[in-house]
Amino acid sequence: MEEKRGLKNRGYSHADVDERRRAVEEFTGASLESVSKYCFDSEKASKNIENMIGATQVPLGFAGPVTIKGDHAKGEFIVPLATTEGALTASIGRGMSVINESGGARVKIFLDGMTRAPVFRTDGLDHCERVMEWIGANMPRLSSVVDATTNHGRLASVESYPAGRNLFIRFTYETGDAMGMNMATIATEAVCKEIEAATGAVMVSVSGNMCSDKKPAAINMIRGRGKTVVAEALIPKEIVERRLRATTASIVETNTRKNLIGSSLSVTLGANAHAANMLAAVYIATGQDPAQVVSGSMTTTMCEDVGGDLYISVRMPSVEVGTVGGGTRLPSQSEALGMIGCLGDEKAKKLAEIVAVTVLAGELSTISAQAAGHLGKAHMELGR
Amino acid sequence: MEEKRGLKNRGYSHADVDERRRAVEEFTGASLESVSKYCFDSEKASKNIENMIGATQVPLGFAGPVTIKGDHAKGEFIVPLATTEGALTASIGRGMSVINESGGARVKIFLDGMTRAPVFRTDGLDHCERVMEWIGANMPRLSSVVDATTNHGRLASVESYPAGRNLFIRFTYETGDAMGMNMATIATEAVCKEIEAATGAVMVSVSGNMCSDKKPAAINMIRGRGKTVVAEALIPKEIVERRLRATTASIVETNTRKNLIGSSLSVTLGANAHAANMLAAVYIATGQDPAQVVSGSMTTTMCEDVGGDLYISVRMPSVEVGTVGGGTRLPSQSEALGMIGCLGDEKAKKLAEIVAVTVLAGELSTISAQAAGHLGKAHMELGR
Amino acid sequence: MEEKRGLKNRGYSHADVDERRRAVEEFTGASLESVSKYCFDSEKASKNIENMIGATQVPLGFAGPVTIKGDHAKGEFIVPLATTEGALTASIGRGMSVINESGGARVKIFLDGMTRAPVFRTDGLDHCERVMEWIGANMPRLSSVVDATTNHGRLASVESYPAGRNLFIRFTYETGDAMGMNMATIATEAVCKEIEAATGAVMVSVSGNMCSDKKPAAINMIRGRGKTVVAEALIPKEIVERRLRATTASIVETNTRKNLIGSSLSVTLGANAHAANMLAAVYIATGQDPAQVVSGSMTTTMCEDVGGDLYISVRMPSVEVGTVGGGTRLPSQSEALGMIGCLGDEKAKKLAEIVAVTVLAGELSTISAQAAGHLGKAHMELGR
Amino acid sequence: MEEKRGLKNRGYSHADVDERRRAVEEFTGASLESVSKYCFDSEKASKNIENMIGATQVPLGFAGPVTIKGDHAKGEFIVPLATTEGALTASIGRGMSVINESGGARVKIFLDGMTRAPVFRTDGLDHCERVMEWIGANMPRLSSVVDATTNHGRLASVESYPAGRNLFIRFTYETGDAMGMNMATIATEAVCKEIEAATGAVMVSVSGNMCSDKKPAAINMIRGRGKTVVAEALIPKEIVERRLRATTASIVETNTRKNLIGSSLSVTLGANAHAANMLAAVYIATGQDPAQVVSGSMTTTMCEDVGGDLYISVRMPSVEVGTVGGGTRLPSQSEALGMIGCLGDEKAKKLAEIVAVTVLAGELSTISAQAAGHLGKAHMELGR
Repeated sequence: MEEKRGLKNRGYSHADVDERRRAVEEFTGASLESVSKYCFDSEKASKNIENMIGATQVPLGFAGPVTIKGDHAKGEFIVPLATTEGALTASIGRGMSVINESGGARVKIFLDGMTRAPVFRTDGLDHCERVMEWIGANMPRLSSVVDATTNHGRLASVESYPAGRNLFIRFTYETGDAMGMNMATIATEAVCKEIEAATGAVMVSVSGNMCSDKKPAAINMIRGRGKTVVAEALIPKEIVERRLRATTASIVETNTRKNLIGSSLSVTLGANAHAANMLAAVYIATGQDPAQVVSGSMTTTMCEDVGGDLYISVRMPSVEVGTVGGGTRLPSQSEALGMIGCLGDEKAKKLAEIVAVTVLAGELSTISAQAAGHLGKAHMELGR
Repeated sequence: MEEKRGLKNRGYSHADVDERRRAVEEFTGASLESVSKYCFDSEKASKNIENMIGATQVPLGFAGPVTIKGDHAKGEFIVPLATTEGALTASIGRGMSVINESGGARVKIFLDGMTRAPVFRTDGLDHCERVMEWIGANMPRLSSVVDATTNHGRLASVESYPAGRNLFIRFTYETGDAMGMNMATIATEAVCKEIEAATGAVMVSVSGNMCSDKKPAAINMIRGRGKTVVAEALIPKEIVERRLRATTASIVETNTRKNLIGSSLSVTLGANAHAANMLAAVYIATGQDPAQVVSGSMTTTMCEDVGGDLYISVRMPSVEVGTVGGGTRLPSQSEALGMIGCLGDEKAKKLAEIVAVTVLAGELSTISAQAAGHLGKAHMELGR
Repeated sequence: MEEKRGLKNRGYSHADVDERRRAVEEFTGASLESVSKYCFDSEKASKNIENMIGATQVPLGFAGPVTIKGDHAKGEFIVPLATTEGALTASIGRGMSVINESGGARVKIFLDGMTRAPVFRTDGLDHCERVMEWIGANMPRLSSVVDATTNHGRLASVESYPAGRNLFIRFTYETGDAMGMNMATIATEAVCKEIEAATGAVMVSVSGNMCSDKKPAAINMIRGRGKTVVAEALIPKEIVERRLRATTASIVETNTRKNLIGSSLSVTLGANAHAANMLAAVYIATGQDPAQVVSGSMTTTMCEDVGGDLYISVRMPSVEVGTVGGGTRLPSQSEALGMIGCLGDEKAKKLAEIVAVTVLAGELSTISAQAAGHLGKAHMELGR
Repeated sequence: MEEKRGLKNRGYSHADVDERRRAVEEFTGASLESVSKYCFDSEKASKNIENMIGATQVPLGFAGPVTIKGDHAKGEFIVPLATTEGALTASIGRGMSVINESGGARVKIFLDGMTRAPVFRTDGLDHCERVMEWIGANMPRLSSVVDATTNHGRLASVESYPAGRNLFIRFTYETGDAMGMNMATIATEAVCKEIEAATGAVMVSVSGNMCSDKKPAAINMIRGRGKTVVAEALIPKEIVERRLRATTASIVETNTRKNLIGSSLSVTLGANAHAANMLAAVYIATGQDPAQVVSGSMTTTMCEDVGGDLYISVRMPSVEVGTVGGGTRLPSQSEALGMIGCLGDEKAKKLAEIVAVTVLAGELSTISAQAAGHLGKAHMELGR
């Protein structure tokens, strides 16, 4: 592509960035001085953005340390949080402190797989069936096709949803430490070429919205996407009362009326207080895709009284994170990953566990604050 | 609160930030050099974050200019986008360019109101009814209570959902140029105190999840939250074919099979390709709450053939944005708002219109790319 | 229309019915002797069915008496139930007996209105807005148009949902003692003719699926359709233990894990054990539309411990029933309405209250049976 | 159980029925003469109902013959329809006639399995995992336990959904020609006893609402329940215009605006015009469980223009039918099954195919009537 000047400049050097930013300033009349103060190598962001003119600086804080008893994350962690919502970091920190005093949070990953679901146009039911049979009979071949597109991914399973002249095929991949969307897209496109050639079905879109990426879709609640993670903690009665200034009963009641009944009546996917807040703060800090907060927000928060103590857990069917690729390459994001020991190989599951415990802590804090009646006061003191 | 040192330091000065960051480095063994390079006054972020240790730098690019024919946004706009997803900025820009060549995008706001829906515990149905009657009879009084908590907000309407010993009351507020969540929370807490005193109902949570904030809830699809915005563009056949290298028929078909049928079969709230991507990029750039991408993601994208031309539109029932308060105060975010002329008063609706057209452009580009079969290639060239 | 013979016979006399049935027997080789034994005047069913060949006999039983403390249904009622599911009648009866011993069930109607939502094709957003404005400015005129189509209906309210070149208008009607679907359809068609003539918008379908009739739609959960009814009962601890052989705690736990959490994880509209069973049995017995069991099934069942006693309630946002028209004219259906004093005028709300209490009783019985662990045994003894 | 008199009479003879009915007449003051005129042996209904007092007579008509090209249903069928909704039978018949003239409807079953999903209380995540591992390691044993409870059922697969101290296990069974709910319940209770004994998990409910029976649940849309059936027909352009008095384009447009877009905006599970109507009519006529219309109503109807011809299809993820057991034993219901050759063994899949084609015909007729603008007129002429 021919390089152009001003707004049309497509280069990646600092000089290109500066020139573009000046052209934007000229066009819009706005000063972009703060935007200009980025401290990373713009060439290194070339796979993350086009038309770069600088950076947005999002305040970075932390919550923790929190004691995590995961299968991958073990020990005490200080969790990086990029946010502009006053009181959020403090609230998560309060939850973590209570979890610590209660012995830490247990967390497990029950499923792991990234999905892509192309939609094919077929001639109708019989054609759908032939395509499904061909796929069933050619799984080793399709696995080889996938293997040729990636060093880290592997085709794990295939589900078919025939619907008239539409055939949706949901491919699930193991994607190692990458979040895996692009890997899954590229692999799926290669697989689809084979399917098209062998069966005459026409791939209309590599994503037929049964994947489903960045949309609030029940299929991800039920089948999972990325990591399906569950975290839990047991808060002794004494700690509930002393630290949360609430009672186990009041917290259970708040969770039932608000998260369970309220979410049912409002027809919500998931049932939680504000899982999206924690997800957005960790995702932005660590270079994850912030649009994938959408799937993560379908979290179910559960509270129950166990012999007077408070048992709290979160089920998160779709935690889509990676520790390589995407925004994780960038310096501040990479450093944030470093804070939680999630740089390098074999770290994606660890990150997912830390994310889930962070959500657990934020849920605990907010629900108990509401149970204790001081949500509003906290906002007035720390926020807006 | 007594100031403490190290991780426990609660101060807001640059020195406090530095000390905390060094304590984090010590605790975690991670270097946080890039994180330390923030260029705004940490004291000014005191309402946006606690435990600040620096900033996350998110690459900032732009798309546009795009011609917008809104009731509030009129003219050509260059839209700031903070993202780490390669190809996103370029893709949105392509959509905008096509929209421009087609004469620009029309956009309208059909509803505007921020909601809070506390849940009360009552004694049962008769008590629910008495509370509802009391509220109906005391609206002027409740409006006064609201007015005493805010200079910019106004109580607009009230809806009741009785459910056994639960009574959910959904309050809707006009909130001026603020996104309005905190304003709505504070006003609702004041109103609830009145209701509690007069009726004996007990407010269990100021948010009973029928609001619903940062959750994928059908109630927001149907009743709206924040701004309900619809944007449209008509792309002449010739431009579809020359610029998008697709046909109107293929784009309509892709949208129908993927967004309409695929989203129905996967039980998705909304029906779009990737609205959350555009929302996240604009929201982070302009200091909006990125967790509110969740509600925004419930966008419905529609394509149809109008005499051979492509008509495309997006219905967005819940665009929750503001131009004052929250993250908009911060320097780089404020500058990004300046790029689109959304600094200062009477700008929130303008921002919502720009957001919707940005989503429209991104949808147009991605759907037409899939219709033309080059989504995968674009990702391979520009992204990871 | 010319009358034809055999399968093509279109007449309504008993002789016509007999001839058609014989033709069906001949065509299919099946004997239809039992089908032939209907005891009502086939001419009188001419508005209920075409191609009549006889009748299906559904066993009719009853549950009750049950003590109802409604605003319309007051006293003791024996509820007719047409079903083929063994154990259902006995189970509902058990629930009613427990409710009686506890002093009866309270029930209230909170909303009442039948809806139709046509979809119009418009030229786009500005056209949508003009149509909405025209409707807003012409409500008295539209009310008159409605009044000309019905003696019993009245236009109550209008909601608009613009979406690109689609404009959905949801009309709500008061429909007296009729369920009201046909009344609403006919009135809406008349109103739409006015709208078409005045605005140039084209009515594509009188039902644009935002009504929504006989589909599981969140809009009916949230906005109501037909009657929105809530019923409740408080079962003293002693009765829970003696009669239900369970504990309040075990019933609350069962309801929470199953109806609240299970329904959330399976992404269900509503949260109940088997509301559809009770609805189907009463609807078939009383000549309601059995397809409207669909909307009714979106019931939320709630249980809580109130000082050791069991409080149970059901919220039913969409009970679509009538006491005139439809199947209520037929003899056995009319007699069943007579059993509960719901024949004649001013009875539809009474019927809705009885329906809700019947659902309450069935929910109580099933959930407590599961809590007591004998659901399976009951099925083995009484059913298949 | 000791037999009692009057309302308390629990006997099954005709004399018992008569005595009970007279007691009901006395209690309610209603005459139940028509109800008394049932023509089947009340003893034979002893597994279908308790407290029998007679029968509800639902008018029975038919639609067809329709040409079906299924894998199980092959040839011409006259479909029995029990309904009180005027115009329904005629409308379905019109659709069938058009399908016939177009060469018939193709139909296929893609999945078949009945589900039960108990919820267990566990001690938390580690306990959940141990239970899941135990089940995974003991599948042959659990299959044997199932086999001991049924001659016709077989355990097909197991899915686990851990959620804190809740563990939902979704068991899928092959159930032969029975609809299979009771078989699945009994088998699951036996399996759960083994799981409880081996793992210490406590079965809280044999149905944890992830089954999900008679509720509008996305899990059934996505995973299927009963039979997942897809039916299709291709209606030549000439027939569309001559017989349906519409155009292919107008029908496709109606389906898109109404069923696809309207259902998305109203957040509906499935996307159809009135599938529940056809389901209710066939289910009541043939002794199916009418409450299972709920799951069936989650049908997706799709229309597209194929070279000017109209392609229409319905995807029905949850057709729960059987040809033995339940209401199929009763005389008029059994005769109705005889009309379509679905009596006896190996007929359940055939019935499911006939159901799906009946839904297809009803959808075709209604959508095309709306496209042609005469829905309202039809209702005025034939119905109330």
